[in-house]
Amino acid sequence: MREEFDAALLEIGRLLVSMAEAVRTAMSQATDALIDADLALAEGVVARDAEVDTTYQEVERTVHQVLARQAPVASDLRTVVSALHIAGDIERMGDLATHVARTARRRHPAPALPQELVGVFRQMGNVADKLAGEMATVLSAPNAARAARMDDADDAMDALHRQLLQVVLGPGWPHGIEPAVDAALLGRFYERYADHAVNAGRHVVYLVTGAPAGPAAAAGPAPTAI
Amino acid sequence: MREEFDAALLEIGRLLVSMAEAVRTAMSQATDALIDADLALAEGVVARDAEVDTTYQEVERTVHQVLARQAPVASDLRTVVSALHIAGDIERMGDLATHVARTARRRHPAPALPQELVGVFRQMGNVADKLAGEMATVLSAPNAARAARMDDADDAMDALHRQLLQVVLGPGWPHGIEPAVDAALLGRFYERYADHAVNAGRHVVYLVTGAPAGPAAAAGPAPTAI
Repeated sequence: MREEFDAALLEIGRLLVSMAEAVRTAMSQATDALIDADLALAEGVVARDAEVDTTYQEVERTVHQVLARQAPVASDLRTVVSALHIAGDIERMGDLATHVARTARRRHPAPALPQELVGVFRQMGNVADKLAGEMATVLSAPNAARAARMDDADDAMDALHRQLLQVVLGPGWPHGIEPAVDAALLGRFYERYADHAVNAGRHVVYLVTGAPAGPAAAAGPAPTAI
Repeated sequence: MREEFDAALLEIGRLLVSMAEAVRTAMSQATDALIDADLALAEGVVARDAEVDTTYQEVERTVHQVLARQAPVASDLRTVVSALHIAGDIERMGDLATHVARTARRRHPAPALPQELVGVFRQMGNVADKLAGEMATVLSAPNAARAARMDDADDAMDALHRQLLQVVLGPGWPHGIEPAVDAALLGRFYERYADHAVNAGRHVVYLVTGAPAGPAAAAGPAPTAI
């Protein structure tokens, strides 16, 4: 019984890490596709999101099986239910990466980003990559202190988002409405991607410490606070 | 044992319906605050979101208790796990209503919406209200056919969102960048609110029929497909 439970937990952990790695790659490639106006790369990100969705469903199925067969309690129950929350966060990160890729695809062959925004989106991509990498790491080896430090990277993302909006809304913006609207929505996608990574990290903290993680999606203020 | 389980399910259902009603009121009031530049109303929406978060945590606690004490299986297990997903969706709807209210608050005493967008946001508010109302109804009395019809209202929301972007990006837009960016992000908040209501409805369909609801947040294409 215990062996079966441990094997299921290992399997769930393996699935979560593979999802985390997939959405990390997806956002990294979506960022490159956005900056380089690379249509094939954008198409690839959109196409591969179905794999993340499939793995999400595998996590859900495995969690249901474990709950039904093993009836875990206490910290075992906490682990299993947290896995469900974490999988939901990661699945949504995959969706957000595809939103970025779709924006690149829609504007192709024109670049979706004016030159003056390339730097800030490169940085947002880097922060997203760092957060997704940390998330994969703490999922492989739960570490509450390390998971809690993900908040710092999230603050960096919020700062970049504000910087982006300052450029777009500044007096020197020469590109008109459509690139401004695209940039604002793209900024929102990166910011939500970071929020979900931090939420997943909070669930890891909860797993390790038993301290509640709070509502699944409460992280971050409204992104338009400029 | 069975009585205890049924009582817990009733309690969870009661909490979900009360959350659904709260986020319905929140979005309705946020829409009014946005259209009428009503600061007090906007403040009230932001302040009351904490109650939704608290109820979410109560659902989570009750679900954990039921899983630990009763070890439900089959459709009972499905019901309990679905409640967790549904609570997550509704909690997020509350967040999105506060994002709308915060936008109204930030622009006050100026109206956040130019006159030519009042009509489309009034309609988005109506569709949001209809979806939240349907969600509360199917949570009170699970009905798969009725929950499945929520997709139609979601299509209406997507159409309104496209209409909104056409106005903002059209040649006649005289208001410059900032109101355009605000409107695009506001449109996104309404669209996500509708997506989460539909997701909650899908979980009700799953409850009733056993057919999987799919990833929790996969509904809806990228909203910037204009």
